[in-house]
Amino acid sequence: MAFVVFWASNLMLTLFSVLITASVSPAAAGSGIPEVKAYLNGVDAPGIFSLKTLFVKLFLKSRCLYEPSSNCWNVMIIGSISAVSSSLIVGKAGPMVHTGACVASLLGQGRSKKYGWTWSWLQFLKNDRDRRDLIACGSAAGIAAAFRAPVGGLLFALEEMASWWRSALLWRAFFTTAIVLMILGALIEFCESGKCGPFGKGGLIMYNVTSTDISYHLWDVPPVLLLGVLGGLFGSLYNFLLDKVLRVYNVINRKCSGYKILLACSISIFTSCLLFGLPWLASCLPCPADAEEPCPTIGQSGSYKQFQCPPGHYNDLASLIFNTNDDAIRNLFSKGTNDEFQYSSILIFFGICFFLGIFSYGIVAPTGLFVPVIVTGASYGRFIGMLVGSHSTLNRGLFAVLGAASFLGGTMRTTVSACVILLELTNNLLLLPLMMLVLLVSKTVADAFDSNIYDLIMKAKGFPFLEAHAKPFMRQLTVGDVVKGPLQLFHGIEKVGNVVHVLRTTIHNGFPVIDEPPVSGSPVLYGLILRAHLIELLKKKAFLSSPEPTGIDVSEQFSVVDFAKKGSGNANKIQDIVVTEEEENMFLDLHPFTNASPYTVVETMSLAKALILFRQVGLRHLLVIPKIKRRSPVVGILTRHDFMPEDMISLHPAWTRSRWKRWRLTSPRWLNPF
Amino acid sequence: MAFVVFWASNLMLTLFSVLITASVSPAAAGSGIPEVKAYLNGVDAPGIFSLKTLFVKLFLKSRCLYEPSSNCWNVMIIGSISAVSSSLIVGKAGPMVHTGACVASLLGQGRSKKYGWTWSWLQFLKNDRDRRDLIACGSAAGIAAAFRAPVGGLLFALEEMASWWRSALLWRAFFTTAIVLMILGALIEFCESGKCGPFGKGGLIMYNVTSTDISYHLWDVPPVLLLGVLGGLFGSLYNFLLDKVLRVYNVINRKCSGYKILLACSISIFTSCLLFGLPWLASCLPCPADAEEPCPTIGQSGSYKQFQCPPGHYNDLASLIFNTNDDAIRNLFSKGTNDEFQYSSILIFFGICFFLGIFSYGIVAPTGLFVPVIVTGASYGRFIGMLVGSHSTLNRGLFAVLGAASFLGGTMRTTVSACVILLELTNNLLLLPLMMLVLLVSKTVADAFDSNIYDLIMKAKGFPFLEAHAKPFMRQLTVGDVVKGPLQLFHGIEKVGNVVHVLRTTIHNGFPVIDEPPVSGSPVLYGLILRAHLIELLKKKAFLSSPEPTGIDVSEQFSVVDFAKKGSGNANKIQDIVVTEEEENMFLDLHPFTNASPYTVVETMSLAKALILFRQVGLRHLLVIPKIKRRSPVVGILTRHDFMPEDMISLHPAWTRSRWKRWRLTSPRWLNPF
Repeated sequence: MAFVVFWASNLMLTLFSVLITASVSPAAAGSGIPEVKAYLNGVDAPGIFSLKTLFVKLFLKSRCLYEPSSNCWNVMIIGSISAVSSSLIVGKAGPMVHTGACVASLLGQGRSKKYGWTWSWLQFLKNDRDRRDLIACGSAAGIAAAFRAPVGGLLFALEEMASWWRSALLWRAFFTTAIVLMILGALIEFCESGKCGPFGKGGLIMYNVTSTDISYHLWDVPPVLLLGVLGGLFGSLYNFLLDKVLRVYNVINRKCSGYKILLACSISIFTSCLLFGLPWLASCLPCPADAEEPCPTIGQSGSYKQFQCPPGHYNDLASLIFNTNDDAIRNLFSKGTNDEFQYSSILIFFGICFFLGIFSYGIVAPTGLFVPVIVTGASYGRFIGMLVGSHSTLNRGLFAVLGAASFLGGTMRTTVSACVILLELTNNLLLLPLMMLVLLVSKTVADAFDSNIYDLIMKAKGFPFLEAHAKPFMRQLTVGDVVKGPLQLFHGIEKVGNVVHVLRTTIHNGFPVIDEPPVSGSPVLYGLILRAHLIELLKKKAFLSSPEPTGIDVSEQFSVVDFAKKGSGNANKIQDIVVTEEEENMFLDLHPFTNASPYTVVETMSLAKALILFRQVGLRHLLVIPKIKRRSPVVGILTRHDFMPEDMISLHPAWTRSRWKRWRLTSPRWLNPF
Repeated sequence: MAFVVFWASNLMLTLFSVLITASVSPAAAGSGIPEVKAYLNGVDAPGIFSLKTLFVKLFLKSRCLYEPSSNCWNVMIIGSISAVSSSLIVGKAGPMVHTGACVASLLGQGRSKKYGWTWSWLQFLKNDRDRRDLIACGSAAGIAAAFRAPVGGLLFALEEMASWWRSALLWRAFFTTAIVLMILGALIEFCESGKCGPFGKGGLIMYNVTSTDISYHLWDVPPVLLLGVLGGLFGSLYNFLLDKVLRVYNVINRKCSGYKILLACSISIFTSCLLFGLPWLASCLPCPADAEEPCPTIGQSGSYKQFQCPPGHYNDLASLIFNTNDDAIRNLFSKGTNDEFQYSSILIFFGICFFLGIFSYGIVAPTGLFVPVIVTGASYGRFIGMLVGSHSTLNRGLFAVLGAASFLGGTMRTTVSACVILLELTNNLLLLPLMMLVLLVSKTVADAFDSNIYDLIMKAKGFPFLEAHAKPFMRQLTVGDVVKGPLQLFHGIEKVGNVVHVLRTTIHNGFPVIDEPPVSGSPVLYGLILRAHLIELLKKKAFLSSPEPTGIDVSEQFSVVDFAKKGSGNANKIQDIVVTEEEENMFLDLHPFTNASPYTVVETMSLAKALILFRQVGLRHLLVIPKIKRRSPVVGILTRHDFMPEDMISLHPAWTRSRWKRWRLTSPRWLNPF
């Protein structure tokens, strides 16, 4: 009976979550961190930051705020529709980061056409750089809120999310997370008086393990090093498996909605069965005499679940499983629970978290990775702690903390931010030296195998993420090697019909503008014009009747706002522009609207060097000019895609045929110093 | 009698410190942070990182490690020559940062010609970028060691020191500070067993104010805001006064060594008089009945100094003054000393620290700013805490912590790093929300008046520091407006005599290389060659007898190491090159040694845009090419100095005559959005 209720409610919640995600906003699926990271790198994935996405995230994410799980489902399902997907091993941090980014993006747009509001004082954020900063701050706020860790959130945004750092960003993110923290503090104070029902517990520190008497000695280092190595191995294995599973899921999810739902349902059913079935394997333990909570706890949350056990006994595995993730982490981190768990239960729990975490992430629902990773790490850390036992001066709870650190280092490969987030979660600065050691070791070990989990997900999703550093083979190539033809260019005074034709038949976003002999002495590169600006010109019909420049200043028809970067989804489309046949024979004077001094590189520059310029300055288009005078003053135009190794191989398929070259294209940097 | 001893010992220690600094390495004077910051921005100030500097810093800095002061001078002067300058209100963090940077720089050079050692495996660090990273890590290590704050040190290096951030730097700095922390931990453990004499006290947390029961409410916010505002005002005043004092000192110090020594001696005598005289003003307080330490303490360190008081009483001002700075901070931060200080004593102590801090910084000795700033901030924070008294739930020690935070925010304008350093110093995460609030307010208030103290010092020292952002007026200028003539350029195949002449008569470090009609069809920009490489060519005498390119590959005579960036001070000089008259008529083929694809901008590009390229990519030379074909394919060459507003005004003196333009040149950004 209990199983049926458990199973059915889990299924329904999952189904609801998947349905609403799949139908309203598929972009809200997954953790959202890879999408935000890609956006901050300059990739505009369609629909990442639409209001729809925000809606789904907010809606479903609130389920995460309360960290749903089986033991409080009865409260959840009645009290809050937001408790959607329960018992899946998924986290809340990712969706909260995505939510923060969505809110920031909406604020940055300053208006929503669809919902009819405009804040003109936000107009000054209408450029790429400030909007990126705003979204980085939003993601910092997300982590800060999820873990009540303002400094950790800020560092996570800087270390993992942002591609361009600057002092202003640091200061803005600091401001943001300070505000987040103050609001959190006010809410905590408000809830402490008992006005929030069962959800108001907990202070600023989520898993407090403070103890003033922590001491450790040299002989504590080997087990800690072991934890680091294990974290690196498990972390890279986790990333590898998650990547494979995601690729399979992607194939399934792409087919049709039915498959998505079927997949999610089967994961939910499988999870329910496992979670309900496995505790039967654990043997019953007698309640400790000095337990602070009632033991066994029935009908309320607590760390001693009776499950199938006789009175006065508890099932330790059930206590871990049928609890909120937060409570499970707190129990694992606590030193008060030294003898509470058996080896077998901890091992089974580790297995559950590890594999269910991998299989649950890919379903079409907002799912995070942070909490599953922390739980998994804490469980094997605890296991090592139990093995070491009294040989170490560290208690088992601290081993669990270090385990969580090692797994964070192994999967996400963040160092400073993982360190600070864990410190802010546990309020134990004295653990800092060991935590840094563990993170160093686990990151180093894991980096030998594969890369950061978010980078793998981004790759699987096909985002053209620009790395900060050129791959070694790029030093052997010149810019001229990768420039693709044919080049579409405009003249300073161009026929309207020509412009419309080119815009309709290509998807380029930037076009070189050149002046040729009638206008200038010799062919000369005048500049670069953007598609969005051309469309604006066509929309306002700022046409000339003859190809001679007139004295009239066309640019007076326009205001700065017309050329501001539109919010995602609000851009004008060429398909919406109607041009009559008569107008097609008129002319456009592009000179006033062209960027007259675009960044340029000569065609003989090494690709690696061009990449540095492209990446550091944050360009979207880079013009290539000839080394020696030619008929055309411009050779081509480079975009982000031209720097992707995959695109280069597709351009020069011969490279893959040579085994040596392929190796140079794909081998990691340390193998390949030349 | 006591005064004479105090006065004379202070004077001797100061004199020793000044003498050794002035005679051995004047670059070691001051905090060193501005120098390191300028270096990381790309400014090579002569001698910053020489071994001499390191020697002085190490030597004198060790005095700081033990934090000298009057009460332990008897131990110091006998036991350690390093206790050099005592009783001056100067800190240790700055010199330690400089020391860290020196060590890093020496490692980065991989060899020291003077001291005859070479590590060839460090050769791969011989480029600007990696050396910068290494030095940033060194400075992180300095702060980490000074405050036992690894994460804070790392963040300080990133927020305040480094001009270019990248993920790799974060990871490297993390690695560095983790190692620092582990070594510190090992030393602490070693010293805990009593093997270090009187210096082995203290754990990882320097000023522990942990308390699990911190709580604060809405009505605690107004006094905290007041602290923030005060911090901002005091901070900007401190920066303003320090800047003025430094400019006066610079005039004095430049004259001759005698003046330097005289200045330092008078400061020392003045300090001694003040420190010894002022405690007489404080009235005696009866020893508290429940004091944990002996009261009054005589002949050992402790927080109750008897001074002139009768037995059973102590002088609170003397207790603050005749203690190490560390102990003074610890007493101010402690909640156990709630009733220990009088209003007047705290105020006098604040005045002493504030003004002596300003006057002591500029003497020619390694002096830091961090500790004086923390002491000053803690004293007025404590004062506010005493005023608020029992109206607040926060105790007076916590007010002192917040005061230190506000003064750090007001002078150094760091946010995240100040926050984390203070957290790591005090081990109190629960104070985080208030600390963030205080830092926000104080930085915002102070930024309205003047800029960061290190930036002021850099400006006073005349370092051409490149800001990340262009000043608004730069958007009105084009690159062509600031290019200076006459341009020195070389042909692809150049006469040796010509090269030698140009190198001897100019101080430029980069020269454009062009090919003209005999070699190419039309004049074409071939690339950019560096002075260091030309000198290397002259040194190896890779000459051709005729101006025709021969088939012989001259570049085979050279190895990569010849063109690696030399360590500071090791660069070859043109004066050392001897060229015979016969050789002067020979030719050099520059083609193989020229950077054939330098970054270029057109002359019509706005200066702001060129600055972004220059700053983001980290260039030293930027070639300017003409928009329209001219006789010469290159218009000029931009260096860091061309982007300095001061240089622009000297180039165009007319600008300063127009008041409006001057205003646009100097007004802060928020006044000037266009």
